[in-house]
Amino acid sequence: MERVETYKENFISYLNEKVVVKEPANLYEPIHYILQIGGKRLRPVLTLMTCDLFNGNLKQAYDAALGIEIFHNFTLVHDDIMDSAPIRRGKETVHKKWDVNTGILSGDAMMIVAYQCFENYEPIVFKKLLKLFSKTALEVCEGQQLDIDFETRDDVTIEAYLQMITYKTSVLVAAAMKMGAIIAEVDAIEGELIYDFGLNIGIAFQLQDDYLDTFGDEAQFGKQIGGDISENKKTFLYLKAMEVCEMKDKEKLRTLYKSTANNAHKINEVTQIFKKNNISEITILEIESYTNKAFEILDKLSISDEKKAILKNFGSSLMKRTI
Amino acid sequence: MERVETYKENFISYLNEKVVVKEPANLYEPIHYILQIGGKRLRPVLTLMTCDLFNGNLKQAYDAALGIEIFHNFTLVHDDIMDSAPIRRGKETVHKKWDVNTGILSGDAMMIVAYQCFENYEPIVFKKLLKLFSKTALEVCEGQQLDIDFETRDDVTIEAYLQMITYKTSVLVAAAMKMGAIIAEVDAIEGELIYDFGLNIGIAFQLQDDYLDTFGDEAQFGKQIGGDISENKKTFLYLKAMEVCEMKDKEKLRTLYKSTANNAHKINEVTQIFKKNNISEITILEIESYTNKAFEILDKLSISDEKKAILKNFGSSLMKRTI
Repeated sequence: MERVETYKENFISYLNEKVVVKEPANLYEPIHYILQIGGKRLRPVLTLMTCDLFNGNLKQAYDAALGIEIFHNFTLVHDDIMDSAPIRRGKETVHKKWDVNTGILSGDAMMIVAYQCFENYEPIVFKKLLKLFSKTALEVCEGQQLDIDFETRDDVTIEAYLQMITYKTSVLVAAAMKMGAIIAEVDAIEGELIYDFGLNIGIAFQLQDDYLDTFGDEAQFGKQIGGDISENKKTFLYLKAMEVCEMKDKEKLRTLYKSTANNAHKINEVTQIFKKNNISEITILEIESYTNKAFEILDKLSISDEKKAILKNFGSSLMKRTI
Repeated sequence: MERVETYKENFISYLNEKVVVKEPANLYEPIHYILQIGGKRLRPVLTLMTCDLFNGNLKQAYDAALGIEIFHNFTLVHDDIMDSAPIRRGKETVHKKWDVNTGILSGDAMMIVAYQCFENYEPIVFKKLLKLFSKTALEVCEGQQLDIDFETRDDVTIEAYLQMITYKTSVLVAAAMKMGAIIAEVDAIEGELIYDFGLNIGIAFQLQDDYLDTFGDEAQFGKQIGGDISENKKTFLYLKAMEVCEMKDKEKLRTLYKSTANNAHKINEVTQIFKKNNISEITILEIESYTNKAFEILDKLSISDEKKAILKNFGSSLMKRTI
C-alpha cells in the first residue's frame, strides 16, 4: 500500500504524460487547462487505492482513474456554463476564459476522451468497466437535471435532495472505487460493498460541499462563498432550515430565496438565519452520520483490518476540512 | 436484402420502442423530441444495409444503428446551440424550444445513451464497435472545432475544408457502414473498403448540403436557406468562388463576408456572384466526382454484383436531391 499523497502524485504524473494539446488546439487547450488547474484528484486516488487494497495490479488502474477524472472535469466544464460560474479552483472557468461554445465542444470531446481511456483493458474487463461508467455518467446527468429542476420548485423534500446529490456526486465516487475492485478482479459482492462505502462517503462529501459553500473559507474552498444562496439553491442547509425554523425565519428565507438581486446582502441575511438556527451544527452531524454509515460497511469487507483502517483514515481525513 | 424504405421503417419502429421519456422528464423529453422530429435516418439505414449485405444477422444491427443515430442527433443539438440555429427539420431546435442549458445537458445524456446502445454485444464485438465509435465521435468534435475556427480565418484552403467536412460528417457515415460489417464479422479488409466507400459518399453528401444551403428549397431542405452565407461560413461554394472569380467579384465577396448585418441583402448578393461564376455547376461536378470515387471502391468488395448494385443505387438516390 502507498500513501494517499503518493497515489495523487503518481496519478498527476500519469495525467501530465497522457493529456497533451493536439490539433485543433482550440479544442484541446481548454481540456489541458481544466485538467491542469488542480483539484483534489479524489476520484482517481480512490480508484488506485481500491485496486491496491484488493491486491490488484496498480499499474492497470491508472487508465480507469484517468477516465474517471476526465469525466468529472467534463461535468465541471458544462456545469459551470449552466451555472454561469466565473471561477473554479480559484481560476477562470473554461467558458469565461474562452467562450460558451468552446466550453460546450471541449466538454463533449472530454467525455469521449474519458471513454477512450478504457481501451487498454481486455474485452471482458473493458465491458464491465464501461457499463458501470455509462450507468454512472447518465446518473450524473440526471442528478444535474434534478439540481436545475429544484431551483424553481417549492416542494423539494430532504429525501429528494439526498437522491439528487447521490446522483450528482456520490455515484461517481462510488463507481471510482468499484472500478478499482473490477480491475483487481474481486468477487462481485466485494465490489458492491466498496460501491456502497463510496456512495455514503460521497453523500457526506457533497453535504460538506454545501456546508463549505456557506460556511467555508473562500481561498481554501476555491469557489465564491454564498454561490448556492445567490442561486437560490435548495441545499441541505436551506431545506433543513425550512424544517426547523420558526414561522418568521421561514417566511424571511422564502422571501429572500425569491430575489435574485442584492446578493451580498442576501447571502449575509440567509447566513445569519442559518447560524441562529444551528444549521451549521445540524449539517455537521448529518455529515458524520453518513461517514459512520460508510465505516460500518467496511466491517463487512473481506480485506484485513489494517486495510480497513486505511480506508477509514482516508474517509476521516476527507471530512476534516469541514470542522 | 430489404428495400431502403423497409430498413428505415423498421429502424423507426425500433427507435420508438427503445427511446421513451423517463424521469427526470426535463432531461429525457428533449431527447425524445429531437429523435422523433424526423430526419433522413441515413446513418442507421446504412448500418442495417451493410450488415445485411455482408450476410450478418440483421436483428443484431439495430442497437448499433440506434447508437449511431442518437449520437448524430446529439451533435445536432449541440451544434444548433453553437450556431444559434432556431430551426432544424422545419421545427424549433431544442435550445429554442427549451433553453440552452437544457440543450447542453440533454445532449450530454444523449451521448451516454448512445454508448449504452452497444451494451448487448458480446465483449469482443462490443470493444471493436466502441473503439470505432469513440474514434469517430472525437473526429466529429474535431471537425466541428475546425468548422468554428474557419469562420474567423482568411487562409482556409479547399483541402483544409475537405478535411474538415470529412471529420464533421463523413467519418460518421463511414463508421455507420463499418459497424454493419463488424457485426456481420467480415474480414477487416472488407470493413476498411466499406468504410472508404462511406467516407467518399459522406463527402459528396456534405458538399451537397453546402449546395442545398444556398441553392436548395427551404421547405424540402428543412433549414433556412442562406444560413452558411449569413454566418460567413467558408463552404466549398465560397472557397471555390474565391479561387475562380475575377478580382472584382473576389473583393466583393470578401467585403460581404466581413459583414454580419443585412442578411437578406447579403445572401442575395453572394448567391448572384456564385451563379455568375458557375459555382453551382462546379459544385455538382465535385459531388459527382466523390460519388464516382465511392463507386470505384465498390468494385474491390467481395460481395455479389447484385449487392454492389444495391449500394450504388442507394448512393445515386442520395445524390438525386441536388439536381
